[in-house]
Amino acid sequence: MTTDDSVAQEQQQQQQATTTTATNLDSQDASGRKSTTATSTSSELAGVKVTITKSLRRFADFPIPGIDFVDIMPLFHDPVAHATLLRALQLQVSEMFPNDKPDIVVGLDARGFLFGPALALQLGAGFTAVRKKGKLPGPCITAEYIKEYGKDFFQMQEDGIEKGQKVLVVDDIIATGGSATAAGDLVKQLGGDLMGFLFILEIPGLKGRDKLDNVPVSILIEES
Amino acid sequence: MTTDDSVAQEQQQQQQATTTTATNLDSQDASGRKSTTATSTSSELAGVKVTITKSLRRFADFPIPGIDFVDIMPLFHDPVAHATLLRALQLQVSEMFPNDKPDIVVGLDARGFLFGPALALQLGAGFTAVRKKGKLPGPCITAEYIKEYGKDFFQMQEDGIEKGQKVLVVDDIIATGGSATAAGDLVKQLGGDLMGFLFILEIPGLKGRDKLDNVPVSILIEES
Repeated sequence: MTTDDSVAQEQQQQQQATTTTATNLDSQDASGRKSTTATSTSSELAGVKVTITKSLRRFADFPIPGIDFVDIMPLFHDPVAHATLLRALQLQVSEMFPNDKPDIVVGLDARGFLFGPALALQLGAGFTAVRKKGKLPGPCITAEYIKEYGKDFFQMQEDGIEKGQKVLVVDDIIATGGSATAAGDLVKQLGGDLMGFLFILEIPGLKGRDKLDNVPVSILIEES
Repeated sequence: MTTDDSVAQEQQQQQQATTTTATNLDSQDASGRKSTTATSTSSELAGVKVTITKSLRRFADFPIPGIDFVDIMPLFHDPVAHATLLRALQLQVSEMFPNDKPDIVVGLDARGFLFGPALALQLGAGFTAVRKKGKLPGPCITAEYIKEYGKDFFQMQEDGIEKGQKVLVVDDIIATGGSATAAGDLVKQLGGDLMGFLFILEIPGLKGRDKLDNVPVSILIEES
């Protein structure tokens, strides 16, 4: 097989992965064959994760010396990788909540905006933004979070979540978990039902997940 | 008709608007009936713009006294409005470039991230981010722009655009045009073919469009 052939074949496989019917998302079909469908979802998810991992790249010493930064931008630069990412996130939500789905997806400024709204739309959910203090107009609620050097504040619009709505918080990377904790606090301040957290990647060794107790935390690509 | 009935009917109309077949995007069909299809696109676009306008809201004196801020967040909060926005943007691109389409959509940090990637995917194009200096890893190019009080810098990754690629720059609102000009400069620095600019809204009276000469500038909702 030539290199061109293998590239073409890989692209074809990726396209097949991203266009698989949405019915796979139902964890249980009409005849109750839950395990077969769950296995199918799991198998498709494994395939798309390989594609996504190939699109990531690393830059040493960014933004500061000692940090090995994982760049997610190539995922959006190629439409096939982009569609694969959204499909993978949708499947991951389905695995997290086989019999449920969020009413609202909350995304963090700014990289959470790159895929949070599209994921929300795919799930038939609304999207609500968490931004740094002063960026959102109208009545807002505020939560503090601790940064490496000092503290900062996140805000959400007061009508971003209605009491009792089921909410999934998404971001690209979980590091110390500080910003995700603040986003979860905002959801709870508005009376939202915090279903869980979904990230594309995790910076290992920082134990960010440990801060987010009592709800499911899912990392799409565990390898990082 | 009860209020509930009319709400249900409106939602149905909106859904029909957003699920109209993508074939409308072709400005010329196999038999060459260009004008019929163009009229159909134009008519659909008029309808979806009405829906979008209803989802916008204004907050006086934000972020500073004297500014009447148009909040686009409700467009993302409701999946029907969200789908309608993306459909409208796609139709607007089709009207701007009836016989062409971008290879790359460039979106500005942070509100341009809310819809730029999804629009790119719908167009089958890649998405490249413009961010404030220091936010993007790896080799980057830089452009200066003038803010109200002093100057700031935008960056783009060097491999975000290949020489000769056709590029559409998108953002939510054009004000003075400074940030859009800087984004256009970045596209040209990388040898991209700057096709034009697309915004959801314009702050009138600031003459932002006048800065963006020589390429088409399109505003989805002209009313603001």
